Amino acid sequence: MPDPRFFKKKGPFSVKEIAEKFSCEVIGNKGLMIQDIATLENAMEGDLSFLHNSKYTKQMAHTKASACIIDEKNIPIAPPHLTLLIGDDPHLLYAKVAQLFYGEDLSSLRGNISKHASINVSAKIGKNVSIEDFVFIGEDVIIDDNSYISANTYIDKGVRIGRNTKVYPNVTLTYCTIGNDCIIHSGVRIGQDGFGFAVGSKGIDKVLQLGSVIIGNNVEIGANTCIDRGTIEDTIISDNTKIDNLVQLGHNVEIGKNCFVVAQVGIAGSTKIEDGVMIGGQTGIAGHLSIGSGTKIAAKSGLMQDVAPGSMVGGIPAINIRDWHRITAMLKKMIKRSNKND
Amino acid sequence: MPDPRFFKKKGPFSVKEIAEKFSCEVIGNKGLMIQDIATLENAMEGDLSFLHNSKYTKQMAHTKASACIIDEKNIPIAPPHLTLLIGDDPHLLYAKVAQLFYGEDLSSLRGNISKHASINVSAKIGKNVSIEDFVFIGEDVIIDDNSYISANTYIDKGVRIGRNTKVYPNVTLTYCTIGNDCIIHSGVRIGQDGFGFAVGSKGIDKVLQLGSVIIGNNVEIGANTCIDRGTIEDTIISDNTKIDNLVQLGHNVEIGKNCFVVAQVGIAGSTKIEDGVMIGGQTGIAGHLSIGSGTKIAAKSGLMQDVAPGSMVGGIPAINIRDWHRITAMLKKMIKRSNKND
Amino acid sequence: MPDPRFFKKKGPFSVKEIAEKFSCEVIGNKGLMIQDIATLENAMEGDLSFLHNSKYTKQMAHTKASACIIDEKNIPIAPPHLTLLIGDDPHLLYAKVAQLFYGEDLSSLRGNISKHASINVSAKIGKNVSIEDFVFIGEDVIIDDNSYISANTYIDKGVRIGRNTKVYPNVTLTYCTIGNDCIIHSGVRIGQDGFGFAVGSKGIDKVLQLGSVIIGNNVEIGANTCIDRGTIEDTIISDNTKIDNLVQLGHNVEIGKNCFVVAQVGIAGSTKIEDGVMIGGQTGIAGHLSIGSGTKIAAKSGLMQDVAPGSMVGGIPAINIRDWHRITAMLKKMIKRSNKND
Repeated sequence: MPDPRFFKKKGPFSVKEIAEKFSCEVIGNKGLMIQDIATLENAMEGDLSFLHNSKYTKQMAHTKASACIIDEKNIPIAPPHLTLLIGDDPHLLYAKVAQLFYGEDLSSLRGNISKHASINVSAKIGKNVSIEDFVFIGEDVIIDDNSYISANTYIDKGVRIGRNTKVYPNVTLTYCTIGNDCIIHSGVRIGQDGFGFAVGSKGIDKVLQLGSVIIGNNVEIGANTCIDRGTIEDTIISDNTKIDNLVQLGHNVEIGKNCFVVAQVGIAGSTKIEDGVMIGGQTGIAGHLSIGSGTKIAAKSGLMQDVAPGSMVGGIPAINIRDWHRITAMLKKMIKRSNKND
Repeated sequence: MPDPRFFKKKGPFSVKEIAEKFSCEVIGNKGLMIQDIATLENAMEGDLSFLHNSKYTKQMAHTKASACIIDEKNIPIAPPHLTLLIGDDPHLLYAKVAQLFYGEDLSSLRGNISKHASINVSAKIGKNVSIEDFVFIGEDVIIDDNSYISANTYIDKGVRIGRNTKVYPNVTLTYCTIGNDCIIHSGVRIGQDGFGFAVGSKGIDKVLQLGSVIIGNNVEIGANTCIDRGTIEDTIISDNTKIDNLVQLGHNVEIGKNCFVVAQVGIAGSTKIEDGVMIGGQTGIAGHLSIGSGTKIAAKSGLMQDVAPGSMVGGIPAINIRDWHRITAMLKKMIKRSNKND
Repeated sequence: MPDPRFFKKKGPFSVKEIAEKFSCEVIGNKGLMIQDIATLENAMEGDLSFLHNSKYTKQMAHTKASACIIDEKNIPIAPPHLTLLIGDDPHLLYAKVAQLFYGEDLSSLRGNISKHASINVSAKIGKNVSIEDFVFIGEDVIIDDNSYISANTYIDKGVRIGRNTKVYPNVTLTYCTIGNDCIIHSGVRIGQDGFGFAVGSKGIDKVLQLGSVIIGNNVEIGANTCIDRGTIEDTIISDNTKIDNLVQLGHNVEIGKNCFVVAQVGIAGSTKIEDGVMIGGQTGIAGHLSIGSGTKIAAKSGLMQDVAPGSMVGGIPAINIRDWHRITAMLKKMIKRSNKND
C-alpha cells in the first residue's frame, strides 16, 4: 500500500466505474468498492491487485485481494472469490488504474518562484513555472509554461526547456534544448564536453565541442545519466524515448523515437540508434555504428558492428542472440564433459 | 602519513597502550612510542605499519617502520628491528589503531543549522543536528539527533533520517526512510522513479512508482549511486550492508544484511539478495531473481538465473566459478594450440 | 554550424591566414574567406570542413563546403571545387582551426565572486577567480588565480585548486589537491571514502580512509566520475590524463601521464597505471595490479593480471588482443558449423 507520507490516494472507486473508464470486462462483483491497489502478496480485503508476470502466478492462490487485473488466459487459475478485470495487457491496465488512484495533480504545486533562486534578468520564464531554492538560471534561458525546476539545479546560458517538463534536483543543463513533457531525474548532466581530443606529435589537444544536445518531447532521463553535446553537430534524443539511470551517451549520438535504454548502458560517439530499439542494461556500443530500428539488444552486450533493423543480438562481441545462447550452452556442455573425465 | 590539512592526529601512544587496548600480543619493545601509522613503503622511524596483503610482503625487508601489525604466520619474515603487534586479522587490528589515531570527533562540528538552508516549518529536526548551506528540506521531513546534512543536499517531503547519519553534499533523498549510523556519500540519488513502463498498442505509458526506499542501520552508500523506489512495494537495503560508488539498484530490489556491493554493479528490478552476499564490481544481475545467502559473485559477471545459498559464481552468463575458470583456461589452450599451428 | 545561443564565432579568416598560422600547405584558392566550420554533410558555401575518419569518405563527393582539411593520401578523392588544407593529422589541424573560430575568452567572465556563495573567511582566493552562486568553500581552502568555480559546487576544508582550472556545477571536492589548467565536469566526486572494510568475527569494521587525492596539471575529469581518496597513501592522477564520464577510480589508484580513460571504466583499489595507457569504455581492472606504459585495452575488458608495457589486450579475462579476436572468431565458426548441421 503506497505510504501516505509520500502519496495521496483518491477513491474508493467501484469495479463498475473502473471497468467503464478503461473499457474492460468484469467477471464477478461489479458493485465492489476498491479501496487501494496492492501486489498479490500484500493485498488486503478491498484491494485491487494485478498479475502481469508469470513469476507471480503462484501468489494467486493465497492473495487476500478482492479483485485482480488479469488477462484472459489466466482466468482459470484465479481463485473464485476474486472479482476479475480482464485486460489484453494487464500491465497497461494496471498503469491506468494506478494513475486513477494516485495520479499527482502538479498544478497545485506550480507557479512558485523562490526568492532564493538566482535567475538572470534576461531569462524568459513562462506561466505557472515553479523554480525552487538555489536554482541557477543563466542568460537568455527560456522555460515554457507549467515546467518545474527543483532545487540546486543549474541551467546554463541559452538553454531552452519546453512545457510541462519536470527537472529534478541537482541537475546540470548546459548547451541544450529540452522538449515538452519531459522528466529529467536528479543528477542528470546534459551538454558537457564530449570526450574529444586530437593526439599530435607534441601531445594531446582538446577539440572544442561546438554542438549541442537536443531532447525531444515526452523523453525521460534517469538519475545521474550523462549526455555529452556534439562535437560540431548535435547529440539528439527523439520523442518518447526512455533512458534509465547512470547511462553514458557520447557526443553526436542520435537515438530515435520510442527507444528504451536500460541502466548503465554506454554508447560511444556518433553512433545512430533508430526508432524502437531496446538496449539491455550495462551494454556498450562502439562509436560510429548504426543500429537498425526495432533491434533488441541483450543486457551486458558489447556491439562492435552495425546491426540490421529488427535484429536480436547479445554477447561480447554481440552476435545473433540465438547463436550467442548456443555458444554459451556449447561451452557449458564441454566443461561438463571435462568435469566428468576428472 | 595522513595530511594534517585534512586529518587531525592524536597520540603518540606506546606499544603497550595499543596492545592492551586491543588485546594483542607483542614481540619486541613495549615501551616504544608510536608517532603515526604508515604503509611499509613510506613509514618512517616511530611509525607503526601493517601487513595484511601478501602482495606487500617483499616491502617488509626494507621498511623503516619501527613497529608492524602482522599475523602469526608472517612473524618469521619480519626483520629483527621491528616490534610486532600480533593479530589474527591484521586488517581489523589496523582499522582499530587507525581509529585510535585519527577517529573524528564529530560532536564538535554538530548542532549548526545554516541560515542559508531552506527548511520547511513542518520539518522535525532532532538535537545536535547540523545542516549546512543551501540544503533544501521539504514538508514533514524528520531528522533524528546528531545527524549531519552537508551543503546542496535535497531532502524531499516525508523523508525520515535516523540518528548519527551523515549525508554528504549534493545528495537527493526522495520517498525514503534512512536508518541510524548510515553514511550517504556525495551525489547519491535515492527514491527516484523506477524504470517502469507499460508498452501498449498506442505507445508507452509510464507506470506510477508508488513504493518507497527503506535503508536500514549502519548502511554505507557510495558516491553517485542510484537507488530507485519501488513500483508499489518498497526497495529495501538491510542493516550493515555496504554499497560502493556508481551502483544502480532498480525498483523493488531487496538486499539483505552484511552484503558488499562493489562499484558499478547493476541490479535490475525485484531481485532479492539474501544476507552476506558479496557482489564484485561491474556485475549485472537480471530482474526477478533470488540470490542465496553467502553467495560470492566474481567481478564483471552477468547473472540470469537464481543462485543457491553459499554459491561462488562468475562469468557471463554466470556459472559455478570453477567451471568459468575452466572454460577460460580451455579457450586459452585451444588458441595456443592454433597459434602454434600457424 | 555551432549555435549562436551557445557559441560566439570569430572570423571570417582567409585560407591564407589559416594556412600561415598553422603552417599547412594549400591546394586551391588561398584568397577564399572561410565563414565557419562544419561537417562534410552539413557544410554550406564558405564553410571549411574536415576528413579525419575514413567512415565519412563517401560524403566528400557531395559536400557543399568550400574548403576541407585533409591528409595527403586523401587528396585524390577530393572533388575539384574544394580548396584543400593539407595536414599530417587532419584531426589535430581541425582542433586548432576550431579554437581559432570559437576559442572562448574566459577572462571576460572572470573575477566575479557571488555574494550568494558561502566562503569561509580562512579561504585564500587568488586574483581573477570567479565563484558562482551557492558554492560552498570550507576552511583553509586555497584557489589560485584565474580559476572558475560554478554554482552549487562544494569545496571542503583544506582543498587546494591551481591556476586556470574550471570546476563545473554540482561538483564535490574533498580531501584533494587539484593542479593547474584542469577541467572538472559537472557532478564529479573527488576525495570521498574508499570502499575499505575489515571483516572480523564480530562483523564489518569501517577502515578510516586517511589518504587524499592528488590531481596533476591539465587533467580533464568527466561528468559524474568518482575518485576515492587513498586509504593511507594517496590516489594520484598525473599530468595531461583525460578521464571520461561515469568512471570509478578506487582508493590508492595511480594513473600516469597522458592516459585516456573512457567512460564507465572501473579501476579497483591500489592498481597502478603507467604513462600513456588507453583504457576502452566499460573496462574493469582488478585491484593491486600494474598496467605497463603504452598499454591499449579494448572496451569492455576485464583485467585480472599485471600487463607488460606496450601490450594490447582485450576480453574477459583480458588476454592478448589478437588471441581474444581469434577466440571469438573460433567460437563463431563452431556455431556456424553446428547451425549447418541442424
